[in-house]
This record gives sequence, C-alpha cells and structure tokens, in this order.
Amino acid sequence: MTERDRRAAIGVDLGGTYIKAGAVAPDGVVLHAETVPTQVERGVDDTIERISGLVRRLAEQAGRNGHEIVGVGIGSPGTLNRTRGVVIAPPNLPGWRDVPVVERVQSAVGLPVVLDNDANNAALGEFMAGAGRGVRSLVMFTLGTGVGGGIILDGRLFRGANDRGAELGHTIVVVGGRRCGCGQEGCLEAYASAAQTAARAAERIEAGEPSVLREVLDRKEPVEAQLVVQAAAAGDALAQSVWRETCDVLAAACINVGHTFDPDRIILAGGMSAAGELLRGPVIEAYERMASTMLAPRPDIRIAELGNDAGFIGSALSALNAQFESATNGG
Amino acid sequence: MTERDRRAAIGVDLGGTYIKAGAVAPDGVVLHAETVPTQVERGVDDTIERISGLVRRLAEQAGRNGHEIVGVGIGSPGTLNRTRGVVIAPPNLPGWRDVPVVERVQSAVGLPVVLDNDANNAALGEFMAGAGRGVRSLVMFTLGTGVGGGIILDGRLFRGANDRGAELGHTIVVVGGRRCGCGQEGCLEAYASAAQTAARAAERIEAGEPSVLREVLDRKEPVEAQLVVQAAAAGDALAQSVWRETCDVLAAACINVGHTFDPDRIILAGGMSAAGELLRGPVIEAYERMASTMLAPRPDIRIAELGNDAGFIGSALSALNAQFESATNGG
Repeated sequence: MTERDRRAAIGVDLGGTYIKAGAVAPDGVVLHAETVPTQVERGVDDTIERISGLVRRLAEQAGRNGHEIVGVGIGSPGTLNRTRGVVIAPPNLPGWRDVPVVERVQSAVGLPVVLDNDANNAALGEFMAGAGRGVRSLVMFTLGTGVGGGIILDGRLFRGANDRGAELGHTIVVVGGRRCGCGQEGCLEAYASAAQTAARAAERIEAGEPSVLREVLDRKEPVEAQLVVQAAAAGDALAQSVWRETCDVLAAACINVGHTFDPDRIILAGGMSAAGELLRGPVIEAYERMASTMLAPRPDIRIAELGNDAGFIGSALSALNAQFESATNGG
Repeated sequence: MTERDRRAAIGVDLGGTYIKAGAVAPDGVVLHAETVPTQVERGVDDTIERISGLVRRLAEQAGRNGHEIVGVGIGSPGTLNRTRGVVIAPPNLPGWRDVPVVERVQSAVGLPVVLDNDANNAALGEFMAGAGRGVRSLVMFTLGTGVGGGIILDGRLFRGANDRGAELGHTIVVVGGRRCGCGQEGCLEAYASAAQTAARAAERIEAGEPSVLREVLDRKEPVEAQLVVQAAAAGDALAQSVWRETCDVLAAACINVGHTFDPDRIILAGGMSAAGELLRGPVIEAYERMASTMLAPRPDIRIAELGNDAGFIGSALSALNAQFESATNGG
C-alpha cells in the first residue's frame, strides 16, 4: 500500500436504537463494521463511552491491517451545531441536550472528530460510494421514522444559510393537511415517512374501511409500511389508496426539489426504500403525471444502494474530506 | 470622482409590456432611468433595437456626466441560457424563441452584456440596494402576474445545479390543488400571484358568492388583486377569505424556504407588494400560526423597497459584478 492508500476513517451513525460504525477507505469501501445497541436509557455518559469503545476497537483493527486512521466522523439525528460539535436536542435521543459530542469522543479516543447531520452524511455516502456515483448534484430523501433531506450541489453538501437548511421533510406540500410531529400541518413527513404511511393505513382501517391488513391490527400487531406495500401489490384497495398517496406526495416533493435545486439525480433511501421498484415505479409514474414540462428532462430517480450503511460510510468520508491537517502532519 | 467612483453600468429589465432601464452606480444609486413600451407585437428585431437605443442614450448621458459605463446587464423573464446569453421561450414575450440577446445587444451598443433571469436580478437589486441590505442571505418572492423566486445565500445568487433552480413559484404547496398555468396542480403561483388572487375572487363571485366586488364584474371590468386587498380591509367576507388563503399559502412558502434555505430575511416584492402591511401583517400572522418551533427564530419578513426599479438596478449590479476584464482593461 502507498501512504495515500493506507488512509482510512471511522464513521459512526448514531441512532436512537443502534450505533452503527465502520472503518472506511477513501473510495467508500468498508474495511470492517460493527453495530451496538445505543441503550440511550443508560444516559449520555454511557452512550459516549459506547461510541468511544466502538471507535477504539475499529481503529485498532484497522491499524493491525496496515491502515492509518486519520479521523472520526459522527452523524447524529436532530438539531446540532456542527462548528461547535454539539448535539442540541435530538427527538430520538431522549436525555441528550447540548452534548459536546466532538470534544468528548475526541478526548476519549485521541483522534480528531467531526460532527454532521445523519441525513447529510447518508447523502454524502450515497453520492461518493452508492446510487449517487457519476453525478455532480443529487437530492436524497431518507424515508424512515421521519423524512430526512440530503442535498449535494456541485459535489458539495448544501446546508442552507446557517447549517439549518435541507430539512425537506418539513416542507409543506398540503396546506391545511395532516398534522406532523413537528407541529405543522401538511409536511412531506406527515405523508411519506414509513411511520406515517403505516399510520394512515391503520387509521383508515380503525375507522372501518375494509382491508386485508385488519387482521394485523386484530392481532394487536403494528401495521408496518412494508405490509402496506405488500398488501397494495397483492391488490388490497385500501393499501393501494394509501400507497398511491405516499407516492404522489413523494413525487410532489421530487417536483419541488426539481424547481428549487434542479438536481441530476434524486435518491430514495431509508427503511421504506426496501420496497425498491414498488416505490420507485409509482413515484416516477406520479412525477410524469404531475410535473410541468418546464422540468423536462426528469431527474434520474433511483433507490439508494448502501442501505443502513450509508450513514456511517458518509460519516467516515466526511472525516476524510475534513483533512485534519495537524493530525496527518503529526502522525 | 476617483476612477473607481466613476464606474457605472446600464441595467435593463425586459418585460412583456415595458422595458425599464437605468444607469446605476456600484452602490445601487440610479443616475438616470427611462422606460419605453416593449411593443413585442412589432417583432424581435424591433424590440432588440428598442433595447439598444435605450442603452445607447443612457450610456451617452452617463458619459456626459463623467461616468464610465463598464457593461450592460439584462434581466429577462422565462427560461434562458445565461452562459450562451440566449432567451429561450418566455411566455410574456410571444415570438421570442432562442434569441441570442447578449450577442445582438453587444454588437449594437459596443459594450459587454450579461443576461440573467429577471427575478434573480430583482433579488440582487433588493439585496444590494433595497430591503435586503445588511443580511447575508435572503429569499425574495416576486408576486406579479406569476410568482418568481430569487435566492441569495452567503451574498451570492443561488441558481440551483444547472441554472434552472430557484423557480419557487412552481413548487407544489397543495398536492391535488388548483391548476397552474405551468400544467401542474397546487403550485404557489396558482394561489399567491396577483393574477391568481384576483382570479380566485372573480371565480367565486361568478359562482354566486356575495361580495362588494360584484359591481366590478358587472361593469365588465377586471377584478385586480389590489381591489381584493381593499375590499378585504373594508370588511368584505369573500375578499377576506380569498386574501387569507393567499397569505396562508405565502406563509407556507416562507416556511418551506425556511426549512430549505434558512435565510436571514424574506422579501415580498412585485405588484402585490404594493399592499404593504396589509400583505406583510397577515403573512407574518399565518407564519407564526403555522410554523414549527424548529424554525425559530422566524426570518425577518419585509416588503421590497425598490418597487419596479429592482429589476434594472439588479441587472446593472450584475453587470458591475461581472467585472468585464477585457473591456475595463482595454477601455
């Protein structure tokens, strides 16, 4: 290996349920990865130690294999201050409030650390190593419990004026529409997240509409978005109606990013992207039905390729991009 | 005057009805301005000669007053290719198709010419010399026949990935909503333009709803947006309902640019901004009622200050920004 080939970084994807991490080479290849439960109920100190332990193990392993770890990238949900390296108040990490995660992990592991939004890092991962390879601009919708937005323009993450932009999940697409967890009405997230797709189906079944999914509710089990997709594909009318609404609203969001950013590619990611062509096909169909000819040609709409690994891969690549001068000069 | 103080540029705002132009100093001060009818029905050659004549007269006058005109900026509606300097197909300039306006005006007046979207240039004008002074980022909605978007981030015009972004008037805010001239349903422009505010009032009156504005229709006169604003202020229930919808939809658009761009300031411009506080007040009220606490603090929402001059002032400033090396070196 040349000196340059030896460089790698540790990426950490901090989620409410799991911490996923991996040592990643500059081309996005995962050298080694590991997942541990977050166990946020044990408190901030415990989670910070869990992250630090994971980073130490991965860095040691990479070192044994001849790699030089130049830094650590952490992707966190919720609001954060990237410059100060502080996680402010992520809804998925109860108890976390103004946690100086960069400073704490840095002093625990002895490596430079950068922090960014998890949706931004996931978009960077797909851009450099997944479904975004080969283009200069993309917008990625991460469709999970919520809807995250990641925007890359001319090869760089777009964050808005004060790092608080790119929150596409809370743009309003139905004025006066369905209530969102953020307090607004008619947000993209209120329709097109996996959680709200499932919730809309469950609400209509509970209100009396017939569906094969009724038996799921009767068993006191949750209606998952994946079950809605399967039932729609099997011909269930209620599931088809819910799924059509999800895909129509997503298509409107794609049209809106077309008019706003005009990206080369749009990537559908997150848990709901497991539906693959059952998601991509109807979104493209709705886009073509709904979009103005002003927007032609249509951006290339694709399913994400890196799955749950996009977050930590992108986090590691953000650390490699940061080019920690002092660390690489000193080490 | 120092050499630097002497610099000025000619800005041209090419509209469907009028061509407005002026000689403008680098601080945005208008040295002299002139407006002529576009008379687009006389054909492209005639309009190009009209623009060129206007530029020549303004440049001569500025020269007599000791100013050095370094270039010409033209703002055009509709789609255009900025790099090639070609106006492609503006709906408001019938007969104009792939017109190389930069090349033609340049050869007619002997000055370097730059072309940009009229909404972009108007935003640049307000940013540098109007309601946008003192901030680093703003989004401007131009509320006229259509709704234009102008976006400035970190002091520079934001145009999207391939110069085709920032078309905020055609973002969808009501999926499945009112039909827009662009072919989509539920665009911001279908509700919040002056023309569509007037049209929504007229449609409801024609459908039988009572309103003091009925007499306007009975006189076979058009219902202008300004009449809707006045009738709403005077207590007319229908006008109040239409105006509330316009302001609610505009507030949703302000919320959306908050989540997407997080600008320091939002500027309401164009013909409808003549309503002043009768527009700004209800938009702020709706924003505070509708927006998530995620967005706090609210961006400063203001009425534009330059009125119809913003377009040509911004066009001139874009020419001054362009720093025509060869021209200034040679001349």
